[in-house]
Amino acid sequence: MGHRLGELAERLGGRVEGDSSFEVRGVSTLEAAGPADLGFVTHGRYRRQAAASRAGALLVPTVAAGVEGKSLLVVEDAYYGLARLLELFHPESPPEAGIHPTAVVASGVVIDPTATVGPYVVVGEGSRIGPSAVLEAHVVVGRDCTVGERAHLHPHVTLYARSEIGAGAVLHAGSVVGSDGFGFAQHEGHHYKVPQVGRAVLEAEVELGANSTVDRALLDETRIGAGSKVDNLVQIGHNVRIGRGCLLISQSGVAGSTKLGDGVILAGQVGVSGHLELGDGVRVAAKSAVFKDVAAGRQVAGIPAVEAGAWRRRQVALGRLEDLRKRLGALERALEREDESE
Amino acid sequence: MGHRLGELAERLGGRVEGDSSFEVRGVSTLEAAGPADLGFVTHGRYRRQAAASRAGALLVPTVAAGVEGKSLLVVEDAYYGLARLLELFHPESPPEAGIHPTAVVASGVVIDPTATVGPYVVVGEGSRIGPSAVLEAHVVVGRDCTVGERAHLHPHVTLYARSEIGAGAVLHAGSVVGSDGFGFAQHEGHHYKVPQVGRAVLEAEVELGANSTVDRALLDETRIGAGSKVDNLVQIGHNVRIGRGCLLISQSGVAGSTKLGDGVILAGQVGVSGHLELGDGVRVAAKSAVFKDVAAGRQVAGIPAVEAGAWRRRQVALGRLEDLRKRLGALERALEREDESE
Amino acid sequence: MGHRLGELAERLGGRVEGDSSFEVRGVSTLEAAGPADLGFVTHGRYRRQAAASRAGALLVPTVAAGVEGKSLLVVEDAYYGLARLLELFHPESPPEAGIHPTAVVASGVVIDPTATVGPYVVVGEGSRIGPSAVLEAHVVVGRDCTVGERAHLHPHVTLYARSEIGAGAVLHAGSVVGSDGFGFAQHEGHHYKVPQVGRAVLEAEVELGANSTVDRALLDETRIGAGSKVDNLVQIGHNVRIGRGCLLISQSGVAGSTKLGDGVILAGQVGVSGHLELGDGVRVAAKSAVFKDVAAGRQVAGIPAVEAGAWRRRQVALGRLEDLRKRLGALERALEREDESE
Repeated sequence: MGHRLGELAERLGGRVEGDSSFEVRGVSTLEAAGPADLGFVTHGRYRRQAAASRAGALLVPTVAAGVEGKSLLVVEDAYYGLARLLELFHPESPPEAGIHPTAVVASGVVIDPTATVGPYVVVGEGSRIGPSAVLEAHVVVGRDCTVGERAHLHPHVTLYARSEIGAGAVLHAGSVVGSDGFGFAQHEGHHYKVPQVGRAVLEAEVELGANSTVDRALLDETRIGAGSKVDNLVQIGHNVRIGRGCLLISQSGVAGSTKLGDGVILAGQVGVSGHLELGDGVRVAAKSAVFKDVAAGRQVAGIPAVEAGAWRRRQVALGRLEDLRKRLGALERALEREDESE
Repeated sequence: MGHRLGELAERLGGRVEGDSSFEVRGVSTLEAAGPADLGFVTHGRYRRQAAASRAGALLVPTVAAGVEGKSLLVVEDAYYGLARLLELFHPESPPEAGIHPTAVVASGVVIDPTATVGPYVVVGEGSRIGPSAVLEAHVVVGRDCTVGERAHLHPHVTLYARSEIGAGAVLHAGSVVGSDGFGFAQHEGHHYKVPQVGRAVLEAEVELGANSTVDRALLDETRIGAGSKVDNLVQIGHNVRIGRGCLLISQSGVAGSTKLGDGVILAGQVGVSGHLELGDGVRVAAKSAVFKDVAAGRQVAGIPAVEAGAWRRRQVALGRLEDLRKRLGALERALEREDESE
Repeated sequence: MGHRLGELAERLGGRVEGDSSFEVRGVSTLEAAGPADLGFVTHGRYRRQAAASRAGALLVPTVAAGVEGKSLLVVEDAYYGLARLLELFHPESPPEAGIHPTAVVASGVVIDPTATVGPYVVVGEGSRIGPSAVLEAHVVVGRDCTVGERAHLHPHVTLYARSEIGAGAVLHAGSVVGSDGFGFAQHEGHHYKVPQVGRAVLEAEVELGANSTVDRALLDETRIGAGSKVDNLVQIGHNVRIGRGCLLISQSGVAGSTKLGDGVILAGQVGVSGHLELGDGVRVAAKSAVFKDVAAGRQVAGIPAVEAGAWRRRQVALGRLEDLRKRLGALERALEREDESE
């Protein structure tokens, strides 16, 4: 059931240093790897640890080649190589197609015969479930939703009416798409609800983390662009537009009507205010709060977020604040002495 | 199916500038509006954009009247006007009353005949569901709960035992009311659970966002006051009292036993420590952390939160820190030169 | 149905000051207590309030003994005493054992006859549910999971495949265990999903708050140690190891591969970066962000987190920044005057 190192190198477009005929039985961490396993190293700094591991062989990036005493599978990008190997060693068996007898499917729903609809799933009127899509147990799909080909909705996902989920998108357990945007008009001392009549769209290959929430738009669309990946417990406000290939790390939030370009990265627990624009490739450091537009390509950090270099300089300055105070005190005393001596 | 501009003005108590007989077919954003649509402007600063829009007519606030070349519906508060128009153009059809055959309803439960109980809803012993209340698919109501008239619980909402939901309250998908407060006594090196025997109450017209959580009290009540609106992924700790008409924006958290007055606003990702009091009308800026009581009417910002004016001055001072350091260096050198020249 | 004060003292290993025969009918807050109730005081500072309460008797810690005019039950630790009394006055009736007829249980599942499986629960192939375990309504257990003795899963909990839940663990409504870690390799401009083939383990007596999320490991295990308590809306990334007896307060997050020792406390809304080590007994102040390893026993605060004493000094220095600027200006003017007078 194993794969020879040479065969793996061929699959990954890498090369072997050492014994090509070594048979790999599994892929493992350096700590847990046994003599029949392939351990892996993604950075050169783990080289010493790698040499000490019990792993029979190692997957290493080009930059870390040359670990002594191990057969190596050398690839350009070891993390991508790892992904490919895990697909090989841990193939996913697709769930059986068909509609579980307990599913409650409204009239006018179209479910592709290759789709899987699990126990207690509820699908509202007029919705369409595409080929090979998977709705796991307890998924609730509102009216007039579209779930694309191969999309995978984990247990307890809720889609509000009119949501659209693109091909290959993955929605993790408990995530909510299309909930009401937070819109209230002040009227005679009350918060008067502004009906949210738009919808939410997740394009192809979007991943949405467990218990994350995406509000639908006031009028048109909240949209997450193709290939963007959203971690757990993230909040996306109404009318937000997120570009393609973005990464939104856990517990971040994007307030209403803000636009993120392509390839934007929000590290963990970031907040972005409403009605802003963040250009393509912007990176926001963890725990930052963005209150202003950020031009494409910029890296920002802090609360409020400023250019990352400025943030670092400010941190250094803050570290020297005590020193500053002391030097000022010394100057004051020096001047005082001068005055006295005059 | 449209409505003439004059008719809309009458409904909203506004006036028309231009063609009162213009027939509005729908309400739309400035970007998406076509010639049969009413676009809208909520602030004067969008006037130029409004003039350039393809919208056949515009809803504008008094302060922004006078957009050229468009028929205008002028109202005092355009956002409130928008809410009213959306109700008209997007009427909600109330769900059919009745109990879905798959619902599991315990003995001793009273469900008003005008209420809607969706598929797979579970209602525990002794609970009461009021007139026109809606429990959507997969809602779980524990024992001895009360759900008021017209309250609307979206899919996957959980009410723990003894929770009380007021009339007209809206609970979004995945929200949890009445979960155990986080209370543990240290005992012989272990965290010994303190039973949480109180309950959680959401008063009339409260809105609770998707996946938000409200813990029940240790002994008495956690309570959210009438008309308060809570966004997604917000945490309310045990024994917390929130006044009437508050706004708690996404990902904020209020720790145990803290009291918020009426009309308090917590912007996004705010944290408020336990056992504090925030007076009526307090506003906390986004991403702030409140560690002290705040008197009524104050605006605070920062970590730890301070009076908003002080926070702004501190930000300015921080921006000048580098300059301060340079000026200090210059003074030191000047004094040194003096000393040498003496 | 009451209990005499003397009897309660005996149970708790405390002593009575006053009337041992006083019959306690219930336990209550100082505000709500009536003449037949036992009020409680956990800190000496509430003594005045206690004396003014209508409570017939008081539970007080040794340090607060001597409240005038009340019969007292004096114990060493009043909070622990309260926990014990609430267990006595509010006994939980265990749910009836058995499998609800609506539960969907796959083949090869072993459910102990003393376990409770509620309505609409779904249990995947190969899973094992231990003695006296409780799966409330709408719990979804994936394939090959283990739920230990007395573990209690509240409504809408999701366990992904291979999750292990220890004896006596409590998972609150909507929490998710074993969701995909956030791992993507950059490949030809796309985020290529790295299969997450590990699992998540919650050891004995762990408590996991409502809507909290625990990702499974890339290869081996994400693990939360015995007796650790996790509040609502907390995120635990993949490969994270959390020691025994930790407290993670609401809305905190721990990024991938980070290790927390035993007895670590993260206050609310804390973020800890990935690949870090926090030693035993580390305490992190609320709203802090930890970007570096923290040695055992240290207390840290701030963004980025620094030693708590340093953080306090920096706060003081920040408060004096304006003063610093003024003093510097005064010195500059003084020197200028000197120069002019020379």
